Amino acid sequence: MTLIDDNFLLTNEWSKKLFNDYAKDMPIIDYHCHLSPKEIYENKHYQNLARVWINDGTAGDHYKWRLMRANGIPESLITGDGDDYKKVEAFAETMEKAIGNPLYEWTQLELKRYFGYDKPFTKKNAKEVWEKANALLSQDDFRPRQLLQKMNVKVVCTTDDPASDLKYHKLLKQEEHENGFKVLPAMRPDKAFNIQSDKFADYIQELANISEIEIKDFSTLIKAFDQRYEYFSSLGAKLSDHGINTFHFAPASLSDVDAVFSKGLNNDELTAHDVDVYLTALIEALMRINKKYNWTMQFHGNVIRNGNKQLFNQIGADCGGDSIGTQADFAQEIMKLLQHMQAENNIPKLILYSLNPNDWMQLASGMGDFYGDGIDEHATKQKLQLGCAWWFNDTRRGMNLQLQMMAENSLLGNFVGMLTDSRSFLSYTRHEYFRRVLCNYLGSLIENGQAPADIEVMGKMAADISYNNAHEYFQFGDVE
Amino acid sequence: MTLIDDNFLLTNEWSKKLFNDYAKDMPIIDYHCHLSPKEIYENKHYQNLARVWINDGTAGDHYKWRLMRANGIPESLITGDGDDYKKVEAFAETMEKAIGNPLYEWTQLELKRYFGYDKPFTKKNAKEVWEKANALLSQDDFRPRQLLQKMNVKVVCTTDDPASDLKYHKLLKQEEHENGFKVLPAMRPDKAFNIQSDKFADYIQELANISEIEIKDFSTLIKAFDQRYEYFSSLGAKLSDHGINTFHFAPASLSDVDAVFSKGLNNDELTAHDVDVYLTALIEALMRINKKYNWTMQFHGNVIRNGNKQLFNQIGADCGGDSIGTQADFAQEIMKLLQHMQAENNIPKLILYSLNPNDWMQLASGMGDFYGDGIDEHATKQKLQLGCAWWFNDTRRGMNLQLQMMAENSLLGNFVGMLTDSRSFLSYTRHEYFRRVLCNYLGSLIENGQAPADIEVMGKMAADISYNNAHEYFQFGDVE
Amino acid sequence: MTLIDDNFLLTNEWSKKLFNDYAKDMPIIDYHCHLSPKEIYENKHYQNLARVWINDGTAGDHYKWRLMRANGIPESLITGDGDDYKKVEAFAETMEKAIGNPLYEWTQLELKRYFGYDKPFTKKNAKEVWEKANALLSQDDFRPRQLLQKMNVKVVCTTDDPASDLKYHKLLKQEEHENGFKVLPAMRPDKAFNIQSDKFADYIQELANISEIEIKDFSTLIKAFDQRYEYFSSLGAKLSDHGINTFHFAPASLSDVDAVFSKGLNNDELTAHDVDVYLTALIEALMRINKKYNWTMQFHGNVIRNGNKQLFNQIGADCGGDSIGTQADFAQEIMKLLQHMQAENNIPKLILYSLNPNDWMQLASGMGDFYGDGIDEHATKQKLQLGCAWWFNDTRRGMNLQLQMMAENSLLGNFVGMLTDSRSFLSYTRHEYFRRVLCNYLGSLIENGQAPADIEVMGKMAADISYNNAHEYFQFGDVE
Repeated sequence: MTLIDDNFLLTNEWSKKLFNDYAKDMPIIDYHCHLSPKEIYENKHYQNLARVWINDGTAGDHYKWRLMRANGIPESLITGDGDDYKKVEAFAETMEKAIGNPLYEWTQLELKRYFGYDKPFTKKNAKEVWEKANALLSQDDFRPRQLLQKMNVKVVCTTDDPASDLKYHKLLKQEEHENGFKVLPAMRPDKAFNIQSDKFADYIQELANISEIEIKDFSTLIKAFDQRYEYFSSLGAKLSDHGINTFHFAPASLSDVDAVFSKGLNNDELTAHDVDVYLTALIEALMRINKKYNWTMQFHGNVIRNGNKQLFNQIGADCGGDSIGTQADFAQEIMKLLQHMQAENNIPKLILYSLNPNDWMQLASGMGDFYGDGIDEHATKQKLQLGCAWWFNDTRRGMNLQLQMMAENSLLGNFVGMLTDSRSFLSYTRHEYFRRVLCNYLGSLIENGQAPADIEVMGKMAADISYNNAHEYFQFGDVE
Repeated sequence: MTLIDDNFLLTNEWSKKLFNDYAKDMPIIDYHCHLSPKEIYENKHYQNLARVWINDGTAGDHYKWRLMRANGIPESLITGDGDDYKKVEAFAETMEKAIGNPLYEWTQLELKRYFGYDKPFTKKNAKEVWEKANALLSQDDFRPRQLLQKMNVKVVCTTDDPASDLKYHKLLKQEEHENGFKVLPAMRPDKAFNIQSDKFADYIQELANISEIEIKDFSTLIKAFDQRYEYFSSLGAKLSDHGINTFHFAPASLSDVDAVFSKGLNNDELTAHDVDVYLTALIEALMRINKKYNWTMQFHGNVIRNGNKQLFNQIGADCGGDSIGTQADFAQEIMKLLQHMQAENNIPKLILYSLNPNDWMQLASGMGDFYGDGIDEHATKQKLQLGCAWWFNDTRRGMNLQLQMMAENSLLGNFVGMLTDSRSFLSYTRHEYFRRVLCNYLGSLIENGQAPADIEVMGKMAADISYNNAHEYFQFGDVE
Repeated sequence: MTLIDDNFLLTNEWSKKLFNDYAKDMPIIDYHCHLSPKEIYENKHYQNLARVWINDGTAGDHYKWRLMRANGIPESLITGDGDDYKKVEAFAETMEKAIGNPLYEWTQLELKRYFGYDKPFTKKNAKEVWEKANALLSQDDFRPRQLLQKMNVKVVCTTDDPASDLKYHKLLKQEEHENGFKVLPAMRPDKAFNIQSDKFADYIQELANISEIEIKDFSTLIKAFDQRYEYFSSLGAKLSDHGINTFHFAPASLSDVDAVFSKGLNNDELTAHDVDVYLTALIEALMRINKKYNWTMQFHGNVIRNGNKQLFNQIGADCGGDSIGTQADFAQEIMKLLQHMQAENNIPKLILYSLNPNDWMQLASGMGDFYGDGIDEHATKQKLQLGCAWWFNDTRRGMNLQLQMMAENSLLGNFVGMLTDSRSFLSYTRHEYFRRVLCNYLGSLIENGQAPADIEVMGKMAADISYNNAHEYFQFGDVE
């Protein structure tokens, strides 16, 4: 065997056949990522490998930053303005220690699939990689749209503020046929949740302006949201996404919610309970709107953000100082929310992610209490899903565990599968990684007599989870 | 390989030999299930496969219901009065998506072992299965007693209310020799725990009537319980079983307990603490009685019951709306209880189950603090046990994890093994499933050099866990 | 295959090669154990196998005691004064049931490596083992220093009270060259944490006497500690170790801490919050001192000690009545502590252990927020580490899980590896066990295409984790 060879992660003959004949060539629906629609639209060249991989001056890959810090690399070669080549070299040196870390495998996979380089990436050959990659990056093939086409991406859902005018989505919509892929907005209303921020009132005003709804209380806030959902929908949006770092279910009367909202607008001090009341009310209101528009909601929960204040103050958010949430009763609080919303039959299509794998069995099992839209009609298949292994769990072990827990508690055959959640155009190899793990899981079930030794039946399942289920569940439609 | 072939779940030669030569043909002791003694006694024919598998008009298999709902099947074909064949067809359609779910494997195993059908069960061949199964179900071989005999079941422990007169157990006792198996009562005092119910006082009166003890306070309640234990014992009962959905240890004085009990009888409002006080007092009192009668207690804990109120209101309890409990400190509270009861040397033989696998290492390790009955006498072997993987964990992965945690923290060689916990006479194949997982675990230990490559030593262990240990631990005795 | 054969735990060719050619013969650094420096210095013979394994009259192996109790063995043959041979026989009988338990494998490994006995240890051959082992124990090869030399141990860090005069460490330092290994003190200030003890004031006085610092308040306590760190450092100490059974972060003003400290000295009643305030203040102060002296701190957390009061009262502490901690928010509280100390840039080199594996992903991920010593300088490599699988997790499954979580969240290539944490001179085979698990993990990564198929690269990583990393990270230096 060699590093990332054809049988990478595939341990038996069934798995190999499933991957090669059924999963590998399926198109990609990336229903959640952090790509910039502007970058796709402008379709610019990348300067060099350091700019793509480490830090382009304004942003970069915090997965890499974090591990480089673990290896004692000075910040100047991470987020700082150090020499670009030296950054790549420092990253190579870090990778030598990172065997077993998913970043090691992502990196080798990107080198192989995008740059045709398949030796281990080390400090010694950093120069060789640097030169080879930079030469390729200067070619037209390596611009954003071409990279998406090369990977057979059919849908990209970005991450957008409700107050966004979606300018680039409108422009990209016109070029959809030519591009061969859709770039759709997806709503991420973080700022509307951040009631403690001193910019909250300004943000609410922004939302009022763009929606042309005067926001004077919680009800009008929700009216403004409804307008934004309608507008996003007109550009093909089908999902909203919610970063729920911690959650404490706190239902309250509308007048209590209004009182808290008003404090937030005035930037008055809020108790922890106030914040919980507002978050509960807003997430419930958005569940209703998602249901109304038949969108899918995503909860990304149990996260510690900016755990290292020193780092946050110096570098900012999303810089590698986040970690797995430690809220022990996270799943319990989410269950209370679901129970409350089920009572009014207002749970939308919903994908539950927790960064803490301790929550997964509870969520995978708990979501099973809420299938069916009202129990007498024919309902969405697998309306609630356990989201695929996320962030720090985005590993062979993590993905495998998520697949097993989803399968054990629910119907894996209806699973909508992988997303990249990435800021990089080079991350589409993660779909290959996922499909290998998936096919290895399915092939192992055949090996053990737990699934039919029928390549067509099992191949269909692999293809469905790779692409078809997402296509049907989210209802994006096809590029015409 | 084919689906459920001879080597199903067995991945090496040692495992195959252990299963085939030592475990497969051992008799079955089903020390906890929900079979109806009335059905066993009356020994009626089943109408058709839908009535056996899905819903017989009054009850059915909520594992199946839940997954059918996940697949968007309308309720009329689940718990409703839809066409029986269409129910089986809808279930088949669901199973096509359920690969990796234990229900898929149970279903194929039941088809193979009971009905001699070994093709994958799909919508396309649902008619074939329907006809084949119905033809067999009409035969005398497929009545309850014959199914138990066919599977070599020696003991069935049912689930009985303390106020039950155990009429059918008495009748079945007379036919024990002829049947070749014992049907023993086991006590499940849920109604006595349900102090918040408006039927609580009526139930306590029922208990008073049957025990002929006037219940005027907590002490007389316990006296009545003692009478019921004595009566159950006279019919061979050896276990009680306790559904402890959540638990908060709250020791209190007898007068405080009496005050709460009195509120319960009057259906006065109870605080959460009141309920905890009563539950703690009752479970402790029953631990003492179990110790006195040398019974084994089972705690089945950390469960969310009836999470979906809409479903509960429409269909009732046990309809597929339950899920894994989310009480993060469940193990902590159980440990407090055990510590408290150890101080008075009143921990009975005890099997600890949690539906939340996060609790298992804590329980498996924690129970290790309480071995020995008083530390100077020769005590029961493995008095406390980690219960085998339960309900949503009743999977290959779950069983394997439970076996490992039990082995790592304790003496697996003393483990009492599998129970069905089922409402169906077709569930005895679960013992085969468990024995395959067990033998694969033991065989893998040999393969890795972790256990002696001595088939007799290891075969004895497989046979002990399959049958002998339960026989010795519970002390049911043999059918004469 | 046979029990503990050459390929024990090694499942592929790469793993075998890694273990045999790179890991097996590396020296051992045992950076945390409970060996007695006095016993090493005095280098006495052992009386017989029961004295070494079970109970020497004053202490013994509580891992064994616990399992013997699980098997119903009377206490006289465990911690009592029963016949020595009968104790070994009772232990053999217990081991027959213990397949799958790490103690089974440790026992067979010790029999094989130290006593050249490689049959399964059973009641039947207990006599044979007894005679063979006793004959060897009487030889000069089987004294403490010779056992350490035989296993190629280069550094032993013991567990020492801050008030210790380290008499035997001083004596052993003089013989370091002759012995070929260092025996270094490591500080374990349990008694200083135990503010609720009625011996607290006496202990603080002891600390004042030896440090020659008058301890009148919290600040002078810390001054005394600083003196002890300096003294310990003079004898080569590089680590402190902290048993944090439960932890609740409770920062307070110095005057509040002083008030609590004063209550403790007077043996006044302390609230739970008082205790938390003191523990938080002391652990933070010691973090600062560890940083100052460039020591490494170890947190050993989430433990239930003396869960069985009856056993504790009769036998004492460390007698097999401890278990995995059930504090559900343990990782959360530790994260608060780290966040607080990071704000003042005072996190020392730190190894985090939790006895509860539910905490591991949270700790492994959470520690990643705090790499770098201040973010602009070149920092220690992998300053924070997830401690290797501990106590009840010291199993093949546990070690493998720790390695994976460490690798997934951090840089496994920098991991400092295994320690024995043992009270026995026969426990050094645990390093062999760890290295086998490690090499099997690394070899499996190669097999799956996840790591380079380059035996030198991977062999270096195996050797680094076996020895080199600990040598570099702790900075013990070499025996001269």
